[in-house]
Amino acid sequence: MNTTKNIKQNRVVTLSSLLSAFGLSLVCVSALSAADADVDLMNKAKAIFGPLPASMPSPGNPITPEKVKLGNVLFWESRISSDGTVSCAKCHPMGLYAADGLRKAIGNHCKENPRNSPTIFNAASQISEHWIGNRTSVEDQAKQALVGPPSFGMPNYESVEKILKGIKGYAAMFKEAFPAEMDPVTADNFAKAVGAFERTLMTPAPFDDFMQGNASALTGQQKRGLRAFMDTGCMTCHFSPYLGGQMYQKFGVFEPYEKYTKSQPVDEGRFAVTKNPSDKYLFKVPVLRNAAETPPYFHDGSVDTLADAVAIMAKIQLAKDLTKEQVGDIAAFLSSLTGKIPEAALRVPILPSAE
Amino acid sequence: MNTTKNIKQNRVVTLSSLLSAFGLSLVCVSALSAADADVDLMNKAKAIFGPLPASMPSPGNPITPEKVKLGNVLFWESRISSDGTVSCAKCHPMGLYAADGLRKAIGNHCKENPRNSPTIFNAASQISEHWIGNRTSVEDQAKQALVGPPSFGMPNYESVEKILKGIKGYAAMFKEAFPAEMDPVTADNFAKAVGAFERTLMTPAPFDDFMQGNASALTGQQKRGLRAFMDTGCMTCHFSPYLGGQMYQKFGVFEPYEKYTKSQPVDEGRFAVTKNPSDKYLFKVPVLRNAAETPPYFHDGSVDTLADAVAIMAKIQLAKDLTKEQVGDIAAFLSSLTGKIPEAALRVPILPSAE
Repeated sequence: MNTTKNIKQNRVVTLSSLLSAFGLSLVCVSALSAADADVDLMNKAKAIFGPLPASMPSPGNPITPEKVKLGNVLFWESRISSDGTVSCAKCHPMGLYAADGLRKAIGNHCKENPRNSPTIFNAASQISEHWIGNRTSVEDQAKQALVGPPSFGMPNYESVEKILKGIKGYAAMFKEAFPAEMDPVTADNFAKAVGAFERTLMTPAPFDDFMQGNASALTGQQKRGLRAFMDTGCMTCHFSPYLGGQMYQKFGVFEPYEKYTKSQPVDEGRFAVTKNPSDKYLFKVPVLRNAAETPPYFHDGSVDTLADAVAIMAKIQLAKDLTKEQVGDIAAFLSSLTGKIPEAALRVPILPSAE
Repeated sequence: MNTTKNIKQNRVVTLSSLLSAFGLSLVCVSALSAADADVDLMNKAKAIFGPLPASMPSPGNPITPEKVKLGNVLFWESRISSDGTVSCAKCHPMGLYAADGLRKAIGNHCKENPRNSPTIFNAASQISEHWIGNRTSVEDQAKQALVGPPSFGMPNYESVEKILKGIKGYAAMFKEAFPAEMDPVTADNFAKAVGAFERTLMTPAPFDDFMQGNASALTGQQKRGLRAFMDTGCMTCHFSPYLGGQMYQKFGVFEPYEKYTKSQPVDEGRFAVTKNPSDKYLFKVPVLRNAAETPPYFHDGSVDTLADAVAIMAKIQLAKDLTKEQVGDIAAFLSSLTGKIPEAALRVPILPSAE
């Protein structure tokens, strides 16, 4: 490789002299070097991030078309919330890339959730769900949301099951999705169905095309941003095909985060789950796919723009002051993670009749 | 016609004698009579209701593809509400036939609206909008909703326009929809776009197939119900292709409605708009299309089931005590008004980026 490069460089010198003698530019030759740089960048990116899979399977909840279909319907079901207004789609509206654009999610009776609503696209890939990892999986998240005081707010799972059983159309749909069960209309199966649906929601993006070898899938600025993202160290935490979701990390390694985010109150993060002092201010590293389309940022939605979020992260996680240009480049790279929303997510299912 | 019938009846008698002599049944002969009855029912229905048009045009707001496209996007836009949670789709979720299943609609900051949220399908056809006719058109409804304290709750139209202008993608979309205007991102054009979208939302139903001559589009019970609907007098108010929306009528002609609906408080209806004592308890006669899919019923959603709503209406509007069978038949007929939701309504548009 190095030999090839040297040969090329020698050739460039020769060509350069020759061309300038004729007053010609070096555009095509620069393009050759740029192609090398692209291949280098692709290889580095592939090693750190890797290809986005076609779905996010779980041994505990195999994805079947019947479960996905039921889960898609249940995702939009608001009649199982304490005030009849909350469905999964409320805090994860598909047209806003399955995040809600609010600082903190608003659930039943306008109760504020403790943290920002993340997108559900590519979400089942993570080590846990919720910002502080207090949900083990998308299935666990879906189930507990039903009785979560600030989300669906139902008093217990039985009350959810009673409503689902009262909506006649669901009996057949649950039976199809869970054919081996005698009494399949349960909160557990609600969770499995919604989970199976979510496990199919991948959003392949220009960045994936780039990693697959299409150099023109990213703009020049996005490529600079990708390189800056890696050189700065962002990928120390934001790795894997999801660029996050694989570990917990202290928010504010070098300085308290609230100094920059102006957060009030100061959330102690995963400490609330483990009560272990070493977990203070730890949060799950968020998935960065579709970040450009899912403001505001951080666990409390305290920062409005992607550029500000990038600058703050470099400052307090890596003790680096990025230039305005670097911030712009990294934000541009992050916008190459904006993916194609699956058709199924963009189609509203007709819910079964109340009677 | 009478002559033809008499001839047929004579032939039936002759055939009947002949057939019974051979021990054969009269099935095919009965079918002939039933066909006559169907044609009679179709003709009566066509005269009272008439064909559903392909859209609901307005001279003041011509329907163009660009306006419809923009209106479809704006219909899902929640960032223009005071708490960021309210879009048109909140109170008119497409998967529930564009009504919300609540007694009264819940808007920004969980404020309760004074009345039940009606479906927006086939809605632009009406003499006015809202239960008490305090909105002149779907455009007027869409515009006023933006500043309606219990709906979007924005302080004024300027604040809405400021948000829309801050979402970059909208400039081009408004320009395409309103090409002649210099500064098209306005609340008025929001209203026109949403209105144009809504003017396309028709839901042709089995009842329309029946009126067009397909006798098997309705079940036997639904046909009995249609006849009972007309014989009982329901169509005195629920006429036109929309089976309603064309007039105001006192709710509780023979007895106060609250005696049966248990409504609290007692809503004085259109009197609130006109202050004319003769308008006390007047409400706009609701469109009955998709009624079976849009419980609960009446202006305050006080009644849960279609059967109860039918029985109460006959009792207090027409002083008739329907039998349980008649109520079941009419409810079955009303379910033949459940239509096909347009594909465009079932597709979630991707909203333009915040930045």
